Amino acid sequence: MKLYIIRHGIAAEKTEYKNDEERPLIEKGRQKTEQVAQCLKDIGIHFDLILTSPLVRAKQTAEILQKNGLSDQLENFSALAPDGDIQEWVNWWLESRYNLDKSCLALVGHEPDLGHWTEILIWGQPQDKLILKKSGVIGLELPVGINPISKSHLFLLTSPKWLINEKLE
Amino acid sequence: MKLYIIRHGIAAEKTEYKNDEERPLIEKGRQKTEQVAQCLKDIGIHFDLILTSPLVRAKQTAEILQKNGLSDQLENFSALAPDGDIQEWVNWWLESRYNLDKSCLALVGHEPDLGHWTEILIWGQPQDKLILKKSGVIGLELPVGINPISKSHLFLLTSPKWLINEKLE
Repeated sequence: MKLYIIRHGIAAEKTEYKNDEERPLIEKGRQKTEQVAQCLKDIGIHFDLILTSPLVRAKQTAEILQKNGLSDQLENFSALAPDGDIQEWVNWWLESRYNLDKSCLALVGHEPDLGHWTEILIWGQPQDKLILKKSGVIGLELPVGINPISKSHLFLLTSPKWLINEKLE
Repeated sequence: MKLYIIRHGIAAEKTEYKNDEERPLIEKGRQKTEQVAQCLKDIGIHFDLILTSPLVRAKQTAEILQKNGLSDQLENFSALAPDGDIQEWVNWWLESRYNLDKSCLALVGHEPDLGHWTEILIWGQPQDKLILKKSGVIGLELPVGINPISKSHLFLLTSPKWLINEKLE
C-alpha cells in the first residue's frame, strides 16, 4: 500500500494568533502547496482518501490537494494533530477497507510528528533524522495484512524545491 | 556538509557481458541520467568532487553528471564498487579538504550498497528499508569534524520519475 505523508504549507507566525490551531496558510504557503499538488497530479498520483490533522493550516493544505483533483475523499483524523499517536492510525488502517496492496492514502499533518511516524514505520522508532520541509512529501510502501511498524520501505522524501525544480537559494 | 548519493543508470543485461564490471549504460539509462543531471543543474547543484565506483556503468553515470557541468572533479573510489566498506570512505572524508560545512560531494555507485551506506550514516546500521531506483538521488546532511555514522540527516530520496515529473507507469 502506498502512503504519502505531506507536511502543511507555510503558515502565519505564532505571534499573530493566540490559538495555534487557528493559524492559516500564508499566500506563499498556499502557492507552494498548489505547485506541489499540481506536480503530484501531473505525475499521476491519486489518493483513495486524504486524512488530515484538524488544525487549520493542515486542513487548508489538504483542501488544496483535494481541489487539485488528488482525491474525492477528505477526512479529519485527530491523531494527526501535534503529539498524536501513530498506533491510532495503524489500528484504524488495519481495520479499514484501504488495507490493500493497490490502495493509496495521504496523511497531512505536522513536524516533528510526521518524521517520527515515518521513522517508526521504517525502523520502529523515532530518531529525528529526517528533514521534511513545509509542503514536503514522503512516500512509503506499507505491507498489507500485518502491522507495518518497522516493516515499511521509504521510496520518496522531497521538498517543494525539488518537486518544482526551483533554484536553491 | 551536503552529500549526494547517486545510483548508476540502467545498464546492459548481465547475460550479455561475461564481466559484470564492464556492463555499460544502455540508451535509456544514458537518457534518464542526462535528464536527472539537467534537473540537478537547473536546481543549482554543484559538486566539489564526484567520487565513482570504478565499474563501467557507474563511471559512465558519473561522466554524464560531469559533462552536464555538475563538477570539474571526478575520481574513482574503489570502496564504491559492490560490497565496499563505508568506513574507507568515512576515513578518507575525515582527512580530506572536503570536511567543511560548505562542501558538497557526490558518490556514484550501486545498490544495495548505497542504500546501506545511507542507512549507516543516518541510523548506524543497514536495514534494507530504502528504495533507490537507477539514476535515483539521495541527499544527506553530514556533521563536520566528527564521525558522521549515525549522526547524519536525510533530506532527499528521489527517483528519475519524481525529478523529471514523468507520469507513473
